[in-house]
Amino acid sequence: MNNILIFGAGRSSNSLIKYLADNANEFNWRIKIVDIKVNENENHPAVSYSALNVKDEFARDSEVKSADLVISMLPARFHKFVAKSCVKFSKNLLTASYETADLKAFETEVIDKGLFFLNECGLDPGLDHMSAMKIIDRIKNEGHKLLCFESFTGGLVAPESDNNPWNYKFSWNPRNVVLAGQGGPAKFIQNGKFKYIPYNRLFRRTEIIDIEGFGMFEGYANRDSLKYIEKYNLQGIPTIYRGTLRRPGFCRAWNVFVHLGATDDSYHLEDIKNMTYREFINSFLYYHPTDSVDLKLYRAMHIDQDSDIIFKLNWLGIFDDTKIGLKRATPAQVLEHILKQKWKLQPDDKDMIVMWHKFIYHDSTLNKKVKLTSSLAVVGENSEHTAMSKTVGLPLAIAAKLVLTGKLNLKGMFIPTHKDIYEPILNELKKHSIIFSEKVDDNIPEYC
Amino acid sequence: MNNILIFGAGRSSNSLIKYLADNANEFNWRIKIVDIKVNENENHPAVSYSALNVKDEFARDSEVKSADLVISMLPARFHKFVAKSCVKFSKNLLTASYETADLKAFETEVIDKGLFFLNECGLDPGLDHMSAMKIIDRIKNEGHKLLCFESFTGGLVAPESDNNPWNYKFSWNPRNVVLAGQGGPAKFIQNGKFKYIPYNRLFRRTEIIDIEGFGMFEGYANRDSLKYIEKYNLQGIPTIYRGTLRRPGFCRAWNVFVHLGATDDSYHLEDIKNMTYREFINSFLYYHPTDSVDLKLYRAMHIDQDSDIIFKLNWLGIFDDTKIGLKRATPAQVLEHILKQKWKLQPDDKDMIVMWHKFIYHDSTLNKKVKLTSSLAVVGENSEHTAMSKTVGLPLAIAAKLVLTGKLNLKGMFIPTHKDIYEPILNELKKHSIIFSEKVDDNIPEYC
Repeated sequence: MNNILIFGAGRSSNSLIKYLADNANEFNWRIKIVDIKVNENENHPAVSYSALNVKDEFARDSEVKSADLVISMLPARFHKFVAKSCVKFSKNLLTASYETADLKAFETEVIDKGLFFLNECGLDPGLDHMSAMKIIDRIKNEGHKLLCFESFTGGLVAPESDNNPWNYKFSWNPRNVVLAGQGGPAKFIQNGKFKYIPYNRLFRRTEIIDIEGFGMFEGYANRDSLKYIEKYNLQGIPTIYRGTLRRPGFCRAWNVFVHLGATDDSYHLEDIKNMTYREFINSFLYYHPTDSVDLKLYRAMHIDQDSDIIFKLNWLGIFDDTKIGLKRATPAQVLEHILKQKWKLQPDDKDMIVMWHKFIYHDSTLNKKVKLTSSLAVVGENSEHTAMSKTVGLPLAIAAKLVLTGKLNLKGMFIPTHKDIYEPILNELKKHSIIFSEKVDDNIPEYC
Repeated sequence: MNNILIFGAGRSSNSLIKYLADNANEFNWRIKIVDIKVNENENHPAVSYSALNVKDEFARDSEVKSADLVISMLPARFHKFVAKSCVKFSKNLLTASYETADLKAFETEVIDKGLFFLNECGLDPGLDHMSAMKIIDRIKNEGHKLLCFESFTGGLVAPESDNNPWNYKFSWNPRNVVLAGQGGPAKFIQNGKFKYIPYNRLFRRTEIIDIEGFGMFEGYANRDSLKYIEKYNLQGIPTIYRGTLRRPGFCRAWNVFVHLGATDDSYHLEDIKNMTYREFINSFLYYHPTDSVDLKLYRAMHIDQDSDIIFKLNWLGIFDDTKIGLKRATPAQVLEHILKQKWKLQPDDKDMIVMWHKFIYHDSTLNKKVKLTSSLAVVGENSEHTAMSKTVGLPLAIAAKLVLTGKLNLKGMFIPTHKDIYEPILNELKKHSIIFSEKVDDNIPEYC
C-alpha cells in the first residue's frame, strides 16, 4: 500500500484528488489531504482529510514521515516548509509551482539522498513545458534548426458561458490577474534583439492569434521569456516569446486600469471606509468642480465616445455610487473586490484553457522555413470541475502514478522538460481529452 | 574657539564652507572637512581637509569627539553613521537631508542628552519649509483660515545659459533626476479629496505657473504631499500639493522615456557591451525588419511629425550609432549616461533655483477668499558657485552660526518649521539676496 500526502485542499486540487481516488483501488493507494481548513470534496474510502498548519513543523513532519509521496498544492510561498520535511524523511515531492530559489536551495540534499523533486508540473508552468519540449526535441532530432518559438496560454471562459463584454471570467486566483505583469518589464528576444516592454505598455503591445475552432485571441507578453532559453536548451535562438491569452479587446480596456494606477498594490488608500466605486476611480483623476468622473476618465485616457472600452467599464459598475466596504485596501485590492463580483464563474459556467505554440524552423530536408503551430483548448464542466483544475491537477496526478508505479526513475530536481517525464504524461493526458492539434505551413513569408 | 566638523566635501558643500570660512575669524572657528576623497576648494587658514571613510567608526569617532558642531553633507544613507558618533559624544548635528527613520531612531537619545539635531535644513527640503511656515504661521496668527497650499521648487538653468531645447541642465545629482517620481504614486489632497497619480501619468498631469520676471514653468507632483499636513500642522486643509518645476514642454518629452521604460532601474540590460544609443531605444520598441527606430518610436508614442518632442529627442542624440560603452547598466543608468553629456553645466553656465508657493485662505477681515503667492529665484555665478550650492549650503551655515553663538537653544530633533529656526535664517538669507516676493490677489474666482 502507498500513502499519498497532499498539502492543499483548495478548488485547484479537485481534479488531482479525483484522479488519485479513481485509481486508488487498482494501485492500493491511501490519499490524505491536509490544509489549514479542509474542504471534503471527495467522498471515497481511500481518501481522508485532516486540518494542519503547514508551518507547524511537528504536525507536518509526522504526516510526511508516514507518506510514500508528497504533493504540494499550497500557495508557492509554503512549499519550502513541505520540502524541508520531505528532505528530512527522504520523500519525493511534486508541485505545480515555479522552481523558485526557495526550492532550488534543497537541490544538493535532494541529489545526495537520491530523491525526486518535480516542480512546474501543472498547466502553466507544466503542460506548456511538456507540449513545447516534445516538439522542440522532435525538430532537433530531425536535424532542423529552430528559429522562433512563441508560446501563449490563457485561462478564460468557454464560449457557451461567455456573456460579458470583457469575454473573461476568473478561473484562478483573481489577485494574480489584477497584478499580472507587475514587478519588472517583459523580456524576450526577437530576431536576435533583446526586447523589453514596461508594465505601462504591456497591454498595448499585443499579438492577435487565431486558433482554429476557437476563434480569435490576443496575447500579451509574460514577464521573463529569456529564462526559457536555458530551460528549453535553446541557446542562440533568434526569437523566443511567451505570453498570456485574452479575447481581443480585453487588453486595451484593462490598460485603462493600469494607466489609472488602479492595479497598484504598493500603498493603502486613504479614507477607504467611506469610499464608493465612483470615488475610487475619481481619486486617480484631476479635480474639477463640475465635470463628471466618467467624462474625466474618458478624456484622461483618450477614450472615444463610441469605444467598446466605455461599454466594458460601465458594465463593471465602476462609476456606481456603491460603497466599497473594505476597511483597508490597496488600489489593486479594491479593483479585485469589484471584479470578483462581476467576473465570477456562476455554478454552471464553463471555463476554458487555451494553449498555443508557434515554432518556425529551417527544415533541413526541404531547405526552407516552416511554421508549425500546436494548439490546445480544454473546456471545463462547471465552476467546480474546471478546465483549470483539470489541466493543473492531471499532469501532477499522472506524475504521481508514474513515480509510485516505478515508471519514472529520475533522481534529482526536475521540471517536466525531460522526455522521460513529458512523454508518458502527454500520452495519458490524451485519454482525458487533453490533445494538442498541430498544423504545418511551409509557405510562409520571409519576415515571420 | 569652536571646531566645526563637516562630513562631505562634494560640490554642494561649496557655499556652506565658504560662508563658514568667511566668518571664521570673527567667531573664532576652525573648520574641518572630511570625506572619502577631499576636494580642497577653500584655501583659508581656518579650513583643513582630511580623508576619512565615514564607515570607519574609530576614525569617525575621533573626529567627532573633538568637534563642537557636526554638519553632514554626505549622501543621506551615511547620516546614520555620523549621527551615531554625535550621540555617543553628545554633539549637535545639522543636515540638509530628509529626516528618515534612520535618523528618527536617534530621537530619544537626542532628547535625553539635551542635544539639537536639525535635518531638512537645505533648499528642498529646507528653504521650502521655512518660507512656507513663515506665511502659514502669519495667516493663522491673523485669524484667517487656510484653504489651499501649493508649493513648487525647481533646480534649472538660468535664462542666460539656457541654450538647449529641453531648457534644462543638471545642477544636482543626475541619477535623482532620472529616477524622479518612481517608487510609489504622487499623493495629495485637492478640495477635500485624496488624489493619486501613478508614475506613468505623473509627467502628463502638470500645472502651468507664471513667475513674474522669470516666465512660465510647469510643475509635476512630488511623491507624498500628505505627510506635509502633519509637518506643517495643517490638519483638515482641503488642498495640499507639492511639486517640482521644469520649463514648459520638458515633462511631455520626458514622459517618452518613462513610457518607453528607459527610466527603469530595476534590472540590467542584456548584452550592453555592444549596444549603441540607437539600439538602446530600439530595445523598447517592437521588431520590424525595415522600419526605422525613429519612426517606430514616434508611432508607439503617438508623436506628431511636427512635435517639439522630436526636436528634443534628436538633440539628445538618442538615435545615434554611438556605443554606450558601459559594462553593466540598468536602462536608467544608460539614460543618465546619455543625458550627463548633454545636460552638463559648462564652466561659465549659471544655474537657477526657483521656488513658488501658493496660499488660498479665507480672510476673516475681508470675509472673502484671498490668494497669496510667494516666489523666489536665485541665479548662480557659474558651474562651481551654483545657486543650488548656495541655497542648500547657506541655510545650514546660518543654522550653524546660530547654534554656535547661542542664539538657537532648542533641544531635540527638528526640521526648520519652528519659528525660532526659520525666522533668523530667512532674515539673514535676505543679505545674501535670497529674497521671496509676495503678491496678494483678493479678486479670485470661486473654484481655485
